[in-house]
Amino acid sequence: MDLSDITVEMNAQTALLATNLTKGNRAALARAITLVESKKAAHRQQAEALLAHLMAKTGNSLRLGITGVPGVGKSTTIDSFGSNLTAMGHKVAVLAVDPSSTRHGGSILGDKTRMERLSYDENAFIRPSPTAGTLGGVAAKTRETMLLCEAAGYDIIIVETVGIGQSETTVAQMVDFFLVLMLPGAGDDLQGIKKGVLEIADLIAVNKADGDNEVRARAAASEYRAALNIMSPRSPHWNAKTLLISGLKNIGLDALWDEIEQFRAVMVKEGVFDKKRSQQQIDWMWSLLQDKVMSALQGDPSIQSLIPKLKTSVYAGELPATAAASKLAAAFFSSKKEQLF
Amino acid sequence: MDLSDITVEMNAQTALLATNLTKGNRAALARAITLVESKKAAHRQQAEALLAHLMAKTGNSLRLGITGVPGVGKSTTIDSFGSNLTAMGHKVAVLAVDPSSTRHGGSILGDKTRMERLSYDENAFIRPSPTAGTLGGVAAKTRETMLLCEAAGYDIIIVETVGIGQSETTVAQMVDFFLVLMLPGAGDDLQGIKKGVLEIADLIAVNKADGDNEVRARAAASEYRAALNIMSPRSPHWNAKTLLISGLKNIGLDALWDEIEQFRAVMVKEGVFDKKRSQQQIDWMWSLLQDKVMSALQGDPSIQSLIPKLKTSVYAGELPATAAASKLAAAFFSSKKEQLF
Repeated sequence: MDLSDITVEMNAQTALLATNLTKGNRAALARAITLVESKKAAHRQQAEALLAHLMAKTGNSLRLGITGVPGVGKSTTIDSFGSNLTAMGHKVAVLAVDPSSTRHGGSILGDKTRMERLSYDENAFIRPSPTAGTLGGVAAKTRETMLLCEAAGYDIIIVETVGIGQSETTVAQMVDFFLVLMLPGAGDDLQGIKKGVLEIADLIAVNKADGDNEVRARAAASEYRAALNIMSPRSPHWNAKTLLISGLKNIGLDALWDEIEQFRAVMVKEGVFDKKRSQQQIDWMWSLLQDKVMSALQGDPSIQSLIPKLKTSVYAGELPATAAASKLAAAFFSSKKEQLF
Repeated sequence: MDLSDITVEMNAQTALLATNLTKGNRAALARAITLVESKKAAHRQQAEALLAHLMAKTGNSLRLGITGVPGVGKSTTIDSFGSNLTAMGHKVAVLAVDPSSTRHGGSILGDKTRMERLSYDENAFIRPSPTAGTLGGVAAKTRETMLLCEAAGYDIIIVETVGIGQSETTVAQMVDFFLVLMLPGAGDDLQGIKKGVLEIADLIAVNKADGDNEVRARAAASEYRAALNIMSPRSPHWNAKTLLISGLKNIGLDALWDEIEQFRAVMVKEGVFDKKRSQQQIDWMWSLLQDKVMSALQGDPSIQSLIPKLKTSVYAGELPATAAASKLAAAFFSSKKEQLF
């Protein structure tokens, strides 16, 4: 497809960035990510040109999502797991979708100080969560960053998140495999799982299964396993398992990696691995388009004047939602005509 | 709020319909529903005027969603349950959201021949699923029908559905309480629950818990109860329970009603019953608006010419989804300007 009518040309600076990035230059990758995270229109144009140019070099990775509550040991686990992988010869990127980064600049994820070994590992690249006005905005930048990391030669991309709002489903929509970390503890101490998270988990790993906690971890794993057995599996080719691990002591992480590789092998064999990714891209395209259009709609002056009273009436049960929606749509479309006069 | 700038006036025919409907006239209710289900623009205008007029008389009901696979005994259970309720002095409406009615006129739900007693009950009203091009369209008409039934004096509205696609979440978004019926059978015979359905269930009822099946039903109920205990409850005020019932033998249906009434009492006391409904209306308004706008977008000629090749390139990983979405948005907004030339 001729892309020249879709994006602008890369300027000389961007083209150099592309060259250095694909050679594996870390500084170039970091600069490219900063370009992609920028809100400025000119930067956005260059970012889109850069990404379009690099597309053919993307996709050669395993994309792995990881979630878990604060305190479950995500950073420690990623540090050990990632280090095992670089020791095997992989290049590992660690990204983050932090839902709280819509509100302030700070991020509790992707914190290098909590991933000591990886932060010094020349075959690992860690980037904190981008900031944006909405979770969708954060996710979009992370997805683009993932493509840049792949073009730079990283063959395992880890995207971590915490369980707030829709962050888990958002990350699940951009990865191949979604891992849920749980605390050890059974019976009354059993850590509850958000129902929506159980739905998207490809594997549950009970962490801190070492020392005194091992018994509690086994009991917890049993209960999660029983719950998973109740569910109809999402795919005919994969039943989500429950494993015991210790991120701190590096126990069970080889078995975890074996499971993930097995998953990939099965999905590739069944012809669904790439299909899932392709469909994720299409879904994302429509979702972005919807966001842009709804954003324009909500920013439209004729809509803005109507919304407060319509919302109030609908909320109070005085006006049917259908009538309100019809009115808003009519206002939006007629304002698009009026813009010229 | 002055509604005269939102909807047209009711014509004389519609005004008479409104009068008779609110007196409880069944024929008027049926005609009003047909008006609401009509695709004709003039009918839609009158339908919106009618609904706006009746809004103050809506809401005085309990809205109950019921799902279950074909063969679980939904019709039999609704027949018994509904008859118990009319015997208590309630007026019961039974509606349906049949996802397959987007494809053909026939509906497997809301079938009066399968609800023998209710179909002859002068205090019950049964309506088959409306037909529409999309599940969203079917749901919109059902929601409007629900309002008409409430204005006609029905104080219990049952909306049944089967588990295809998003039909359960769609119905859950329009009701106060969502009941999931399951078959008896444990261990290898345990009927799996779709993860998304477990998430929205306010109660699970294992049906056919009578005679030889009673033991299997108890075992099944145990397993579902264990799975529910793993989940973090969606509301701090309600833990979904698992009950045993027999729709055929009218066993456990009083206990079921007690649970539902208890749910309502708790939610009203905590001040969230009406809030949930109001939020459902707002969410629905935005969802309708989004559908209308995206529909117009997809029907726009300049978009239609772009979509096939953009989709192909995105699907093949040749073009980033962000660039494709930017291009489509730009085409949509500039075409809105061009429409005048």
